[in-house]
Amino acid sequence: MTETARRIVLASRPEGEPRPSDFRLEEVPVPQPGPGEVLLRTTWLSLDPYMRGRMSDAPSYAKPVDIGGVMEGGTVSEVIASNNERFAVGDIALGRTGWQTHAVSSGQGLRKLDPKVAPVSTALGVLGMPGMTAYTGLLEIGKPQPGETVVVAAASGAVGALVGQVAKIKGARAVGIAGGPRKCDYVKNELGFDACLDHRAPDLAGRLAAACPGGIDVYFENVGGAVFEAVFPLLKPFARVPICGLISQYNAASPVAAAISVPQVMRATLTKRLTFRGFIVSDFAARHEDFLREMSGWLREGRIKYREDVTDGLEQAPQALIGLLRGENFGKRLIRVTP
Amino acid sequence: MTETARRIVLASRPEGEPRPSDFRLEEVPVPQPGPGEVLLRTTWLSLDPYMRGRMSDAPSYAKPVDIGGVMEGGTVSEVIASNNERFAVGDIALGRTGWQTHAVSSGQGLRKLDPKVAPVSTALGVLGMPGMTAYTGLLEIGKPQPGETVVVAAASGAVGALVGQVAKIKGARAVGIAGGPRKCDYVKNELGFDACLDHRAPDLAGRLAAACPGGIDVYFENVGGAVFEAVFPLLKPFARVPICGLISQYNAASPVAAAISVPQVMRATLTKRLTFRGFIVSDFAARHEDFLREMSGWLREGRIKYREDVTDGLEQAPQALIGLLRGENFGKRLIRVTP
Repeated sequence: MTETARRIVLASRPEGEPRPSDFRLEEVPVPQPGPGEVLLRTTWLSLDPYMRGRMSDAPSYAKPVDIGGVMEGGTVSEVIASNNERFAVGDIALGRTGWQTHAVSSGQGLRKLDPKVAPVSTALGVLGMPGMTAYTGLLEIGKPQPGETVVVAAASGAVGALVGQVAKIKGARAVGIAGGPRKCDYVKNELGFDACLDHRAPDLAGRLAAACPGGIDVYFENVGGAVFEAVFPLLKPFARVPICGLISQYNAASPVAAAISVPQVMRATLTKRLTFRGFIVSDFAARHEDFLREMSGWLREGRIKYREDVTDGLEQAPQALIGLLRGENFGKRLIRVTP
Repeated sequence: MTETARRIVLASRPEGEPRPSDFRLEEVPVPQPGPGEVLLRTTWLSLDPYMRGRMSDAPSYAKPVDIGGVMEGGTVSEVIASNNERFAVGDIALGRTGWQTHAVSSGQGLRKLDPKVAPVSTALGVLGMPGMTAYTGLLEIGKPQPGETVVVAAASGAVGALVGQVAKIKGARAVGIAGGPRKCDYVKNELGFDACLDHRAPDLAGRLAAACPGGIDVYFENVGGAVFEAVFPLLKPFARVPICGLISQYNAASPVAAAISVPQVMRATLTKRLTFRGFIVSDFAARHEDFLREMSGWLREGRIKYREDVTDGLEQAPQALIGLLRGENFGKRLIRVTP
């Protein structure tokens, strides 16, 4: 094979916001599948906020990417050569082959996708990790009840958009927070949230209080920082706060300033009997079949909408991740690696 | 009746630590029971940290005591006159008649006690609200598993002593934190905790880390402040933190300084998938029968020990509460109102 593979490796650990020089594009020969293996050509690469964590060696729930290692990521790929009887050339598969055009796999962890069921890119979004994250965090920790108020930030993003829509399906009110009027318009008028507030406009706290006159029962935490501080005084007794992400502080190179102190949060947690619980999607792996069945059903019935934010070309991935961490995406950010 | 009743009312809302002048002792005629009512003479008055909250009008889960109102509190009383067929003169009853020698009751909320089952003062301690608090907070939120490490502060107190002993019964390791070598000796050698650390000695964080070499699975929060800060870095993935009390900050007149920030706590909650949940005992009222059955059984079997810290005389209650908030008690603090 004369084709060349490309991959993006971690060149250096960022201090603060990642820079393009923290990544390096490499050209290498296309790898050859051994016995039992398949050769995959990446079609779609998912970009997700958690990737910032993998670039850092601060303690976390997963090992960081090594310097010089291929950046991790979920992918949809086409099988272009197969020595594995489970996969035929032309099959489409979901995997975690990372930021590269080609990969060899034993088949372990690969899941075949049926393009007739849904566009295969949805396996990285609404029917994939972000969808499962929204579904399990909201239902297993948030437990919204009919008539309750659910607030979610990054409400036009891959996870937030689904949190609000699933909350509505469960009979709750959904209030989104997003960056800018265009996203807010989409969240309210396309996704059907009851309200959406622009966190870039003045007085988020006052506008949020007006949008949640009875207080907040569930706050699905994606961002932290100033948004959390606007939410905090509005939490009702017995409110639940699933902590899914803290994108506002991922790029922080030094301690993040905060207007609320730990003693204040502890006191409110006690007197209002709040629950704060962090999770990652794999904690609820046992719910995966339920998730796929329910979310696919809602998608078919038109009760769930989603939006993809597509960039062409693997070489664009670093800048697209940098932008994602700034909130520049509008919907689920994907790289189309192979047109 | 020529007997005089005495009661202690809230004279003023304290700023910071309560002073004796925040309370006022009043003498009043003994009240007379009307139709269907009983007259109670208080035998035991329970003193508990939550009472500091009732002296303040800061928002909380319960209304404050009014200025001039009788201080609230759990009591064990003797029926000395009865117009209620459920109660006979001489009956002993658990109620919430507050800081006074006499009270009239309709019988609602009164529970008759059998002095043959256990000393009646235990209805205010190991078999009462503090016992139920320890039992439900530990088992419903902390959920200790065999081999896990449970840490509790105020470990010689009414709640903490039971948290550690129940944790041991459930097969967990129990590590206490208490004030001074005498209490620590009691917690370790009488109550059977695996270790107990004196929070007044230097380097609590280092000694706690040494006592919990594998980290902490459950931290039962009674105190907040510096103890929480020593515990925080040791919390293991999936650790549970039932928040029952924050006695170190109850007397604070101004914002409490903290060495850990909210963004740090949020980050750890996410990456370690921690659960923080506040509760008060009435949230788990449905478990009351289970609690009474199990705790009485353990008590009979000698698997649970308790210690009472008794002061004689209603007029001593203000100073005894002030001392309780300073950690001067050694065991469950009670006022013997009638010898």
